[in-house]
Amino acid sequence: MNSFIVKGDFCFSKSKSEIITKENAYLLVENGMCKGFFDTLEKEIENYTLFDYTGHLIFPGMIDLHTHAPQYAFSGTGMDLQLLEWLDKYAFPEEAKYSDLSYAKKAYSIFCDAIKHSVTTRACVFATIHSDTTHLLMDMLDKTGLYCYVGKVNMDRNSPSLLCEKSAEISAEETENFIENTSHKYKNIKPIITPRFIPTCSDELSFKLGEIAKKHSAPIQSHLCENKDEIEWVKELCKEAKNYADAYDRFSLLTDRTIMAHCVHLSSDEIKLLKERNTFVAHCPTSNSNLKSGIAKIREYIEHGLNIGLGSDVAGGETLSLFSVIKEAIKMSKMYSYYVDNSKSPLTFSEAFYLATKGGGKFFSNVGSFEEGYEFDAVVLNFTPYAYDLSVKERMERAVYTNEDLKGICAKFVNGNKIV
Amino acid sequence: MNSFIVKGDFCFSKSKSEIITKENAYLLVENGMCKGFFDTLEKEIENYTLFDYTGHLIFPGMIDLHTHAPQYAFSGTGMDLQLLEWLDKYAFPEEAKYSDLSYAKKAYSIFCDAIKHSVTTRACVFATIHSDTTHLLMDMLDKTGLYCYVGKVNMDRNSPSLLCEKSAEISAEETENFIENTSHKYKNIKPIITPRFIPTCSDELSFKLGEIAKKHSAPIQSHLCENKDEIEWVKELCKEAKNYADAYDRFSLLTDRTIMAHCVHLSSDEIKLLKERNTFVAHCPTSNSNLKSGIAKIREYIEHGLNIGLGSDVAGGETLSLFSVIKEAIKMSKMYSYYVDNSKSPLTFSEAFYLATKGGGKFFSNVGSFEEGYEFDAVVLNFTPYAYDLSVKERMERAVYTNEDLKGICAKFVNGNKIV
Repeated sequence: MNSFIVKGDFCFSKSKSEIITKENAYLLVENGMCKGFFDTLEKEIENYTLFDYTGHLIFPGMIDLHTHAPQYAFSGTGMDLQLLEWLDKYAFPEEAKYSDLSYAKKAYSIFCDAIKHSVTTRACVFATIHSDTTHLLMDMLDKTGLYCYVGKVNMDRNSPSLLCEKSAEISAEETENFIENTSHKYKNIKPIITPRFIPTCSDELSFKLGEIAKKHSAPIQSHLCENKDEIEWVKELCKEAKNYADAYDRFSLLTDRTIMAHCVHLSSDEIKLLKERNTFVAHCPTSNSNLKSGIAKIREYIEHGLNIGLGSDVAGGETLSLFSVIKEAIKMSKMYSYYVDNSKSPLTFSEAFYLATKGGGKFFSNVGSFEEGYEFDAVVLNFTPYAYDLSVKERMERAVYTNEDLKGICAKFVNGNKIV
Repeated sequence: MNSFIVKGDFCFSKSKSEIITKENAYLLVENGMCKGFFDTLEKEIENYTLFDYTGHLIFPGMIDLHTHAPQYAFSGTGMDLQLLEWLDKYAFPEEAKYSDLSYAKKAYSIFCDAIKHSVTTRACVFATIHSDTTHLLMDMLDKTGLYCYVGKVNMDRNSPSLLCEKSAEISAEETENFIENTSHKYKNIKPIITPRFIPTCSDELSFKLGEIAKKHSAPIQSHLCENKDEIEWVKELCKEAKNYADAYDRFSLLTDRTIMAHCVHLSSDEIKLLKERNTFVAHCPTSNSNLKSGIAKIREYIEHGLNIGLGSDVAGGETLSLFSVIKEAIKMSKMYSYYVDNSKSPLTFSEAFYLATKGGGKFFSNVGSFEEGYEFDAVVLNFTPYAYDLSVKERMERAVYTNEDLKGICAKFVNGNKIV
C-alpha cells in the first residue's frame, strides 16, 4: 500500500552542516521507507503510483519534542508574565478543566486539527493528570495519522488542589495502568511517562516512576532548568541532589529514552550527566523568550554532543509552527552570541533545520531525513511565486523564515501514509 | 461615499498602557474619519451602509515606518550574515536590478500584492536610486489603496558601481525633480527624501538633500546606528561630527518629519538630539536580530519621550507582518532586560501594539486608533474558533502572537476606503 514515488523539490539535512537539495527529483518510497532518488522516471520505478508535487518544496516532517496539548486553548495569551506566575494564572486553571470529558473533547479536537495541518509529523505531548481525557487525546491523535508520544502528567505536591493527585501511590498506579493499556493499543500513538517537573513530584512518586519506566522500558519526558527561580526552588526541595539534573537522575529518570524540555541554564556538571545518560534536550526558544526564561546554551550543548531537538512548548511557546521555532532558535542564538558569550557562534540555518528534523527525529529512530533507510515523513508546502529564480535552498530558507507553513500545507505523509 | 457603519470586535490603543476593546460594537465613520462607537444600531445611524463583521476582530491598520520594497524579492534568505556583508552579497546586487523597468514591474507587483494583503495600511518605503522604477513603484502602490511615503534612494559614495550615482549634483537634481513630480500626483502616495545612510552619501549630497527638504517641506527617512561596525565606519568618515546622529543633523536632516530606522545603539547625546528634533525612530527588531545588530534600547527611548514606531525592514526583517514585528519587539525587550539591563522592564503587549499603530501613526497625523477624529484605517481579521470564550483582549493578543495575519485578512480600510 505505501510504496510509491514522490516528485518535487526536496530539502533535507545530511548533517548539521550539510543540507541536501534535490530539484525536480523522484523519491522512491517502499513500505513507508525512503529508498533513494531518481532524476527521471526510469523504467525501474515507472509502475509505482506517482504523487506529483512538481514545483513544490518537500521537507521532512518536523519533530516537535515538547508540547502541551491542553494549553493550546490559550496559546498566545498572557505573554507578559514569567514562568511560575504564568503557570498559576494560565496553565494550571486551564489544565484543571480537562477533568471534564466534554470540554476536553472540544478543546483537544481544536488542538488535533491544528497540529495535523501544521508542518509537524511527530510530537511528544504532555496531556494532564487526568487518565480519561488523556486516553481521549490519544484516540483523537490516532485519527490524525501523526506519530505521537502522549503522557498522562504526574503531580502530587506543590500543585493547585484540582491538579494535585491524592498520593504518590495513586499517581504511580494510574500511570502504570496507563502504560499497560496504551502501549500496544495504537500503531502510531505511544505512552510516555511524564512527571511534570521536580517541584510537583514527591521523591516517592519520582522513585516509583523510575521503577515503572525500567519495568516497561518506557520513555520519559519532563522539564529541566527552565527558569532561575524554578532552579532555586528545586535546590531547596532536593537538598541531597547535586543539581537539578541529578534530582531526576537519582530516580533513574535520566535515560537515553528521556526528553528534558528547556535546559536553558544547565551547569557543566549537568551537561556531562546528560551526555553520559544520552538524554535528549528539547530546545524551546519561542517559549524561553516569551516567559523570559533566557537563552539556552545550545552551541555548548552541540559542542558536547548532546542529543538535541526542538520543541514548540505550546503555550509557553505561542505557536505549534516549528518554522517559527527554527527561526527563533537562530535569532536567539545570535543574541546570545552578541550579548552573553561571543565565543559561541550563532546557529546557522542548516544547524537549526537539522535540530527540527533529524536531531529530534533520532528519538523516533530513523526519522527526519530523506536518506535511504529513513521512514518517509514529509510535508509538502504550497507553491509560492517569486520575482526571480531562487535556488531550492534559498526557497527553503525563505519558506521557514516567512512562515509559509501558516498559509497552509499542500500534503503530508507520516511513515509512508498520506494524512493530508 | 466613505461614510458608513462598521460592526465587530474593535481593539485599539488609547495610550501605551491602555488598550480599549469594544465588543459587538458599531463604529460610525464619516468622510473617512472615526466618529464614535454605538452599542446598538440606533436611529441616528441606522441609515448608513453597514459593514457587518460580527465576531471578527478589527484592529487599526498597522503602520510600517521602515521597509525596502526592492528587497522583498529575497526576503527570508541569506540570514546567516551580518549587515555590511549582507548588503554586499544580497541587498546591493538585487537593488541594481531595478534599473530594468520590466524586472521592477514583476518584482514590485509581488511586493505590492503582499503589502496590500498584509495588516499594514501605511508604510514608509525605500525604493532604489532609480527614478524611473521608483515612479513605477508609486503608480503600483497607488493602485493598492495603501497610504505610503516612497523614497528614491540617494547613494554617491562607497557603493557598488551599479548603484553609485555619478555625482552629488546629479543625485540631488534627480531628487528635487522626483519631489516636484510626485508631491501632488497621488492622493495617498507621497515622496520622501531618502539618503541611504551616511556611508553612501557624501557631505555635498547630504547638504543638498537638507536644502531640498527645507525648500519643499519634505519628509526624510534614513538609517541610524544599526550596527557597531557601521557606527565605527561613520566615525572615520565624519571626523567633524560629534556622533552618528550629529552627522545627519549638521545637514539639517534631523527634523520632526524625519524617520531614522533602527537606532539600536544610540548614545545619551544622540537620544537627547533626537528628542530635541522630535525625530521619529523606526524600531526594527526582526531585522536587528537577523543581522545580529543587537537589541535597541526601546525602554530608554520611551522614557525619554521619543517618537517611536515599528518597521518591518524587509529584507533585513524576514517578513512584512507587523504582527511578527510586535511579537519580536516584546521578546527582544525581554532578553534585553534579562541579559543587558534588568532595570529596563520589557515592553508589554499593550506598549508594543501602541508602537505599531498609534506610535507610528503619529507620523501620518491622526492615524492608528479608532478614537474620534482619527482617520479610519482598519484591518479585519478572519474569524478563528476557540475552545472557550476568550475576551476580546485575549483574542487580540492571540491573533498577534499566532500570526493570524498570515492566514489572510477579511477586509481592510485606508482613510475610510475599503481596499480589500
